[in-house]
Amino acid sequence: MANGTPFGNFGYLGNFGYLGNFSLFPPCLHQMPSFCYSAAMCPAATDSADYLHNMRHSLAHVLAQAVMKLWPDTKPTIGPPIDNGCYYDFLFAKPISTEDFGAIEKEMRKIINQGQTFEVDALKVDDAIAFWKEKKQPFKVELVEDLKAKGETKVTNYRNVDAKGQEMFVDLCRGGHVENLKEIPADGFKLMSLAGAYWRGDEKREQLTRIYVVAFPSKEQLQTYLKNLEEAAKVDHRKLGKEMNIFVLSETVGPGLPMLAPKGAVIRQELEGWIRGELKRRGYSFVYTPNIGRADLYKKSGHLSHFKKDIFPLMQAEDAEYVLKPMNCPHHVQVYESRPWSYRELPQRFAEFGTVYRYEQSGEVGGLTRVRGFTQDDAHLFMCPDQMQQEIEGILDLAFYIYKTLGFENFRLRLSLHDPANWEKYIGTKENWKLAEDALRNALEKLKLPYEEAVGESAFYGPKIDLIVKDVFGREWQLGTIPQVDYNMPERFDIWYNDKDGTKKRPVMMHRAIFGSFERFIGVLIEHFKGAFPLWLAPVQVSLVPVAEAHEGYAHDVEAALKAKGMRVTYFESTDSLGKRVRESEKQKIPYVLVLGDKEVEAKSVAVRNTRTGKQEVVSLDQFIAKTAKDVDERNLECSIG
Amino acid sequence: MANGTPFGNFGYLGNFGYLGNFSLFPPCLHQMPSFCYSAAMCPAATDSADYLHNMRHSLAHVLAQAVMKLWPDTKPTIGPPIDNGCYYDFLFAKPISTEDFGAIEKEMRKIINQGQTFEVDALKVDDAIAFWKEKKQPFKVELVEDLKAKGETKVTNYRNVDAKGQEMFVDLCRGGHVENLKEIPADGFKLMSLAGAYWRGDEKREQLTRIYVVAFPSKEQLQTYLKNLEEAAKVDHRKLGKEMNIFVLSETVGPGLPMLAPKGAVIRQELEGWIRGELKRRGYSFVYTPNIGRADLYKKSGHLSHFKKDIFPLMQAEDAEYVLKPMNCPHHVQVYESRPWSYRELPQRFAEFGTVYRYEQSGEVGGLTRVRGFTQDDAHLFMCPDQMQQEIEGILDLAFYIYKTLGFENFRLRLSLHDPANWEKYIGTKENWKLAEDALRNALEKLKLPYEEAVGESAFYGPKIDLIVKDVFGREWQLGTIPQVDYNMPERFDIWYNDKDGTKKRPVMMHRAIFGSFERFIGVLIEHFKGAFPLWLAPVQVSLVPVAEAHEGYAHDVEAALKAKGMRVTYFESTDSLGKRVRESEKQKIPYVLVLGDKEVEAKSVAVRNTRTGKQEVVSLDQFIAKTAKDVDERNLECSIG
Repeated sequence: MANGTPFGNFGYLGNFGYLGNFSLFPPCLHQMPSFCYSAAMCPAATDSADYLHNMRHSLAHVLAQAVMKLWPDTKPTIGPPIDNGCYYDFLFAKPISTEDFGAIEKEMRKIINQGQTFEVDALKVDDAIAFWKEKKQPFKVELVEDLKAKGETKVTNYRNVDAKGQEMFVDLCRGGHVENLKEIPADGFKLMSLAGAYWRGDEKREQLTRIYVVAFPSKEQLQTYLKNLEEAAKVDHRKLGKEMNIFVLSETVGPGLPMLAPKGAVIRQELEGWIRGELKRRGYSFVYTPNIGRADLYKKSGHLSHFKKDIFPLMQAEDAEYVLKPMNCPHHVQVYESRPWSYRELPQRFAEFGTVYRYEQSGEVGGLTRVRGFTQDDAHLFMCPDQMQQEIEGILDLAFYIYKTLGFENFRLRLSLHDPANWEKYIGTKENWKLAEDALRNALEKLKLPYEEAVGESAFYGPKIDLIVKDVFGREWQLGTIPQVDYNMPERFDIWYNDKDGTKKRPVMMHRAIFGSFERFIGVLIEHFKGAFPLWLAPVQVSLVPVAEAHEGYAHDVEAALKAKGMRVTYFESTDSLGKRVRESEKQKIPYVLVLGDKEVEAKSVAVRNTRTGKQEVVSLDQFIAKTAKDVDERNLECSIG
Repeated sequence: MANGTPFGNFGYLGNFGYLGNFSLFPPCLHQMPSFCYSAAMCPAATDSADYLHNMRHSLAHVLAQAVMKLWPDTKPTIGPPIDNGCYYDFLFAKPISTEDFGAIEKEMRKIINQGQTFEVDALKVDDAIAFWKEKKQPFKVELVEDLKAKGETKVTNYRNVDAKGQEMFVDLCRGGHVENLKEIPADGFKLMSLAGAYWRGDEKREQLTRIYVVAFPSKEQLQTYLKNLEEAAKVDHRKLGKEMNIFVLSETVGPGLPMLAPKGAVIRQELEGWIRGELKRRGYSFVYTPNIGRADLYKKSGHLSHFKKDIFPLMQAEDAEYVLKPMNCPHHVQVYESRPWSYRELPQRFAEFGTVYRYEQSGEVGGLTRVRGFTQDDAHLFMCPDQMQQEIEGILDLAFYIYKTLGFENFRLRLSLHDPANWEKYIGTKENWKLAEDALRNALEKLKLPYEEAVGESAFYGPKIDLIVKDVFGREWQLGTIPQVDYNMPERFDIWYNDKDGTKKRPVMMHRAIFGSFERFIGVLIEHFKGAFPLWLAPVQVSLVPVAEAHEGYAHDVEAALKAKGMRVTYFESTDSLGKRVRESEKQKIPYVLVLGDKEVEAKSVAVRNTRTGKQEVVSLDQFIAKTAKDVDERNLECSIG
């Protein structure tokens, strides 16, 4: 990942949040190092995270030791800890299957119970190369040779020794372990799955077998995790999205190119309308730009050279080459530079629901969350340097308003900063970096938001804040980037404004997206709400169930009254049984079922069944309309009737 | 034009309405035959249209005669009448310039005043070939040879003879002339411009010089036309759109790929919001589909073979070829076919603001109206055959509501039918064609809408109604297609619904677009309103002009009050003179200027200057808010204050 950010190659607003099947493809797969040797690649361990990291890291050694005991001719490669456990990649002489998991786990428990400890040997690189050659471990040899090529003179091996001091296993490793393997809870881990993985991610190299392990400090925590996993699978947006007719995939259209069916379009339009209104209130203006541009535009922006493999193949037209845009910024810069701006007119905040395309490998795409085409709720802000902090505060305020309204309560903020040891990696002056990093930090401090600093995790073109959201299953999602400062684009396009003193100055540019992309956000919401959307977002809000044919006239009156208020209504004719129609409404996760019989016709009332609470309440039609209108206007999470 | 429709190669919702510089590029350039010999290509002449056609056609002969007299070594090619006059394409031995127009016009008047008449010679094709070879006119030879190849056995030459019976000029022609050239008003025509044109539109053939002439029955009519032209040039959307910061063109993004700047985006969002609400009220649902699809999709739909040259070059990805979509229908069909439908669920009306791309030649693009990328307010309706008429009525009702609200009062409806002499050209059964044509005709009759029938002008896949709108300058614009019946797409994708009797039936599909495309429609509206948009569409609605610094506090209160109501406001600080700020507001065509001085501060009132009427009125702030809100809600064309 060229620019040091974990969220896709573009450094921000990337395709990869935490979604997906999070057992087979752990959330952190795109976030964590694939080779744990280099300490710079392992985030600094802190407090309890320290124990978790060391325990999971040690468990990877246990896994490798067990595998080597069972199949001694296996070639181990690397095995880092990840957010929920660890994995290890092996080259097996003969394929293994999940049926072998029992034997491996048994062996691992045995090793843990032996109470082995770690001992470290510091070796000169050449000695280490000789050592691993002697051991006939070609992958380890390659790793050390690479370290040597990078200028390392020493490396470390970690040996597991038993109580008698006998060596049981040795691995090339930088360290970060428990002292005694007994600190690993023998009933707190579980082998989860197998996956294929190329050595060093290179499809031309050896195809390895990756074993995923989940690991927690206690059996109870493991069980909670596994239960959450099971619950999460039930609300997998790919399953629910199909059942609820929210989106459509078509092989003929192409993988990673989901279409929103009418019910999904309702959700998107509600989200669009909501944020559009908020943006206008907050002084944003909108722009519309095409999905393509000439290759020259992306040469100038630098995307074509930096991110070519993530861009769809160029279109070779007679007059020029055209690019399907991977991001909206170059176009927004074109709008900015189409006229001169005075400092009095800044900040300019250009928003667009911009559809972009990135050529992910087809094996990596699926559902609404790993896609090749997606629409960002994108914006680019152009400002004077002294306006940075205020703009950052505005963006954070908007993001928290949006997420809290949707019931996300657990947040984590990460401030990604430059690496002071590597100034040559970055564009922009040190002075400007300090200005931007201070503005980001001061905004977080002023709003009293807790955050972690990630030194060296910024993009090469500027620092940023990422918002990581935790859902009801405790899974973390990287959604918006709020914001990403950019010193590169203004420089490359030579944009400016007229300052007070009459001179031309370079504006600061910020990228930001709150939802990230509508596709992924809708995917997250489906799972977050388990399909049971709050009233204002529900594709169908009310189902009408006349008890018998005699009540259909009234039911149609109710339908007309609700539709006149803009409510989304489904009408169930009385041909099927009452029970069946109510059940069908529940299955479709329609918030309210109105059962209409003699009493309701007489009293002009409606018998409301709240499918979320299972409770019933009879209210007048007017009351029903007033209460639902209030819930919709206020975007309440609960349905307040019944 | 493969399928007999004049509006772009796709047959409907095409790129070409009547916009553009209508003198240099006459509106009918894409509508009229480039070779007038074949009567089938010249629309049937009627009544006064008959005289106009014959007069303009005869004038083309006069033009050619004059040119040949002045430069005898010129090779004439073809010269048809067009909507506002005629043109003729010549191969000149030496280039001419508009400075020669005086001499040509003088010669033409002399010819007209001689009172020449037309005489006709019917010749066998071979004799005609010999005749034109003898005359050393290679283009005429080629035309006759082509006619021979098509099976024609006879052709006609028309000779102009003077009062003494002496031949003055001869041309290959099918006829349709005045009897005596004196019937052409010598002061009713004017040479307008020169343009390059390839022989037979083929860029590999000779490059010719085209002379455009405008011609009317009287000097007065010519002058009115020229004056309209001058007025229209002032409101040319390309000029006004730039002055008003509505859209941005960038060479680096590419020709024909306009971007909407913030002020243009306001107009588009108002139009979007309006029609989105109307569509929901009228039972449409929305879908969202990507801008690309695999080539297989367009092979299946037939677009790739029929319209390849109009599609952007394919993207050759590793897993498949991808197409930048030229239209939305194949995607909408994919959404339809993603689940089964019962007859009880039909009609389904899928709408999308779908952005499509068509590779027009770069010389043909410009402004907002001749573009390569545009967003259609598209919809596809899937219905049972017996629902056709009702759906057509619904579409017509919507179209008339939209256009009338915008102040378009002059309409022309054209019902394009199949050609009964060429059944082999069409897809679909005769029975289905009758059903569809009857439904279209019956809907027009029921709504008592006058219309013309255009036999043989339908697409090969179904009949349609086009709505042609006349603007304040009398120019006609083809905007929406309302609707186009399609028997091709359902057949190719084999889509169906479950009918009452339990069998699978083929639904009828209709394409329709009301605005056509947002880009073109905004271009039309800029010219239609001469930049002075009605309050609800105006990018900026109110300008605030405090008389002096002392009034700025109150002015900011007014600003806040208006913004809280969602009004779009510009604030002019008191640093410039009052007159300058008012003039600047008028220049920007802001509907209302609020001048705020001592009296207004005291009375909590606003002195309103209506820039449209030039009148002033003092009203309370509350009254101003109430009245403007009403004008916006009702989408009134007039600003009712002042």
